Amino acid sequence: MTHAVRNDADSGTREALAQTKEASYAFRALEASVRNRALEALARRIEADRADWLAANRQDRDAAEGRLRPSLLARLKLDESKIRHIVQGVRDIAALPDPIGRVLERTRLDDGLILEKVTVPLGVIAMVFESRPDVLPQILSLALKSGNAVVLKGGRETLASNHAFMRIVEKVEDEVGELPAGWARLIDTREDFHELLRYPEYIDLVIPRGSNALVREISESTQIPVLGHTEGVCHVYVDGAADVGRAIKVAVDAKVQYPAVCNAAETLLVDDAIAARFLPEFETAAGARGIEIRGCPRTRAILPGAEPASEEDWRAEYLDLRLSVRVVDGVDAAIDHVNRYGSHHTDTIVTEDAGARESFVSRVDSATVIANASTRFSDGFRFGLGAEVGISTLRTHARGPVGLEGLTIYKYVLRGAGQVVADYVGENARPFVHEKL
Amino acid sequence: MTHAVRNDADSGTREALAQTKEASYAFRALEASVRNRALEALARRIEADRADWLAANRQDRDAAEGRLRPSLLARLKLDESKIRHIVQGVRDIAALPDPIGRVLERTRLDDGLILEKVTVPLGVIAMVFESRPDVLPQILSLALKSGNAVVLKGGRETLASNHAFMRIVEKVEDEVGELPAGWARLIDTREDFHELLRYPEYIDLVIPRGSNALVREISESTQIPVLGHTEGVCHVYVDGAADVGRAIKVAVDAKVQYPAVCNAAETLLVDDAIAARFLPEFETAAGARGIEIRGCPRTRAILPGAEPASEEDWRAEYLDLRLSVRVVDGVDAAIDHVNRYGSHHTDTIVTEDAGARESFVSRVDSATVIANASTRFSDGFRFGLGAEVGISTLRTHARGPVGLEGLTIYKYVLRGAGQVVADYVGENARPFVHEKL
Repeated sequence: MTHAVRNDADSGTREALAQTKEASYAFRALEASVRNRALEALARRIEADRADWLAANRQDRDAAEGRLRPSLLARLKLDESKIRHIVQGVRDIAALPDPIGRVLERTRLDDGLILEKVTVPLGVIAMVFESRPDVLPQILSLALKSGNAVVLKGGRETLASNHAFMRIVEKVEDEVGELPAGWARLIDTREDFHELLRYPEYIDLVIPRGSNALVREISESTQIPVLGHTEGVCHVYVDGAADVGRAIKVAVDAKVQYPAVCNAAETLLVDDAIAARFLPEFETAAGARGIEIRGCPRTRAILPGAEPASEEDWRAEYLDLRLSVRVVDGVDAAIDHVNRYGSHHTDTIVTEDAGARESFVSRVDSATVIANASTRFSDGFRFGLGAEVGISTLRTHARGPVGLEGLTIYKYVLRGAGQVVADYVGENARPFVHEKL
Repeated sequence: MTHAVRNDADSGTREALAQTKEASYAFRALEASVRNRALEALARRIEADRADWLAANRQDRDAAEGRLRPSLLARLKLDESKIRHIVQGVRDIAALPDPIGRVLERTRLDDGLILEKVTVPLGVIAMVFESRPDVLPQILSLALKSGNAVVLKGGRETLASNHAFMRIVEKVEDEVGELPAGWARLIDTREDFHELLRYPEYIDLVIPRGSNALVREISESTQIPVLGHTEGVCHVYVDGAADVGRAIKVAVDAKVQYPAVCNAAETLLVDDAIAARFLPEFETAAGARGIEIRGCPRTRAILPGAEPASEEDWRAEYLDLRLSVRVVDGVDAAIDHVNRYGSHHTDTIVTEDAGARESFVSRVDSATVIANASTRFSDGFRFGLGAEVGISTLRTHARGPVGLEGLTIYKYVLRGAGQVVADYVGENARPFVHEKL
């Protein structure tokens, strides 16, 4: 591929990325046993060398003291208990089934001409992530497990912690011996990360973890596929045929169980047929949990105490206890609202009517569509994916909660015995068998 | 009804695309029976209304006469025999298994909490394609089968033919009744197509068919995923442990069976261990088929009559009878050459040695890797995919020959009985079952 001319001054980054791409060819060919051995070595080495890592983290925290909010300082802090969790996490990933080399399909094209579709690593993945010392070990473990080379940029508040962790990784490389130089590269500055976005020939996927603004900025500035999501504007729709008690329980959980995350509900849609019965009861339950309702005119006709909702509220990701509430005319109107205003992330219908349920499930164009359960279930661990790489609102490659599988693609492998296409065309062409094996 | 996008103001394009996105929500929810009924109606309507289409095509050809090469004029020509093939193609696509609504995985998260991963259409696909009257029916059939709305731009030499075909489609829409307005949209100008590339919110995938330059230009000017390939620089590597007769047969087929296409071989790599034995015999066979060899110095030491190859030859997609030939030191050097100079499309090893074969197969990072058969097998129909959407050198979503599956993605559907996440966290948390069903 050829790309736009670039500044010569960038050649340092370019060379480093070219080396990582080169390393990815050897890295992808490592046996599962080697990758799992590296994971086990990583777990042991974290335990053995944790003092250096903890000291570096103390340095990061001293520098951040007074500049970060207490909740962010708490996330920044590494301690013995977190390290135990991290080590367990590395071992859990080692124990997962190998995502590479799985034969997805096997087809006999003809006698002695066998086609396989086999999972392989993507190649090189670039990730930018928040200031938490536990993220780097998790990402490196996923990279080792999936055979992908990585280029990583952590939050600047964790610079010392992350470099200390890379010293642990270097010791693992020495111990294992077979990991090619450059397979995991840490970069320090935002500028270097932006530079990297200009090289689709070296980077196969970008995974940004962080604010919506960051994800959007990255998506808009690169031709490399970006796996992630910006807003999570999730809905709960209470259908006319809902069980009211169940609807209240689901709506409250979707809003309050963890309001600050992407799969929390932001908008409640209520079928006009049940609004007069449901809304007053919901208001009581919601009030008890601190939910602040912003209603459409029909909602406020039933709940006069609610604040009025504006057009912007239907697109708002509050990430707090505010909830917009709209009365709609049945499931079709609810589906239209969700497809128009939502972020195609996760949406729930509550109903006892199978027709309404299946209509919502098939016509709502979201990564995860739920019937009669909280939006908060939309999560890689809850879905049993083993490890969560992220939640994607892409419509290609990987969608919804993404596990290790999202870090893989397939290739076709055809094994023959000297066959040529000339024998399969024209007069007297040999037919293909196309038998699934 | 289907309308052409107005090309006067940006807002016209934007509104038209927004309408097509809207149509895609209804289109994706159509039952397979409706989509197949539309395909059957299309086949019948092409037969019934072919006179109008043929007349429009005659108009296109009259306009192109003298401006196009004879081979392109032949591609432009529609006749009764081509129409019979086209109608058969529509019926063949109708007969394929439904790509939508397939349950890829089913997991019990807990009692009465069942997760499904189900195939769904991507949404809206934009395609630009060459001046052939048979492409539009094929693409519209794939769109109907896969439940994707489409925005299409054909070559300008087929403008009248394509508009005549869209009149046939309008009659099908009237007959079937359930296809939402705007599901298939034809646009006439290159400017409008470029305008469309600015709307990732309305277009989910772009599939360019045409020159490498066109594919590259589109890839570099949009954030929308682009499925396709630019160069096809494909290799045949003749290993030291190859059967010489088999190697000659495969290499000649890969080069001459259809030199002008992307999966034809451009470079032949020969293991030094077999070069002195293989190359003279190959030169005789190649000469007889008109192959013109450009060799590296080691090749020319054995074949003094060959032209010298330059560094550029290793990256060249000749698409004719030229073939670059390089002597390399074994399978590792061959793999390095292929990964460095190739286009990650299709590459073949010829060898009787299982170790060399598996090394090449696992370490060559190409969409299709072949052992002991011609590169020309890399094709959706030969692979038994039923229909070929294109060949992709993307590393995400779909790779290699892409069938209908490449026009689909999945969503997660979770059906419960009122479950909330609060019950699955903290003290006394209910455990997840995660049983694969």
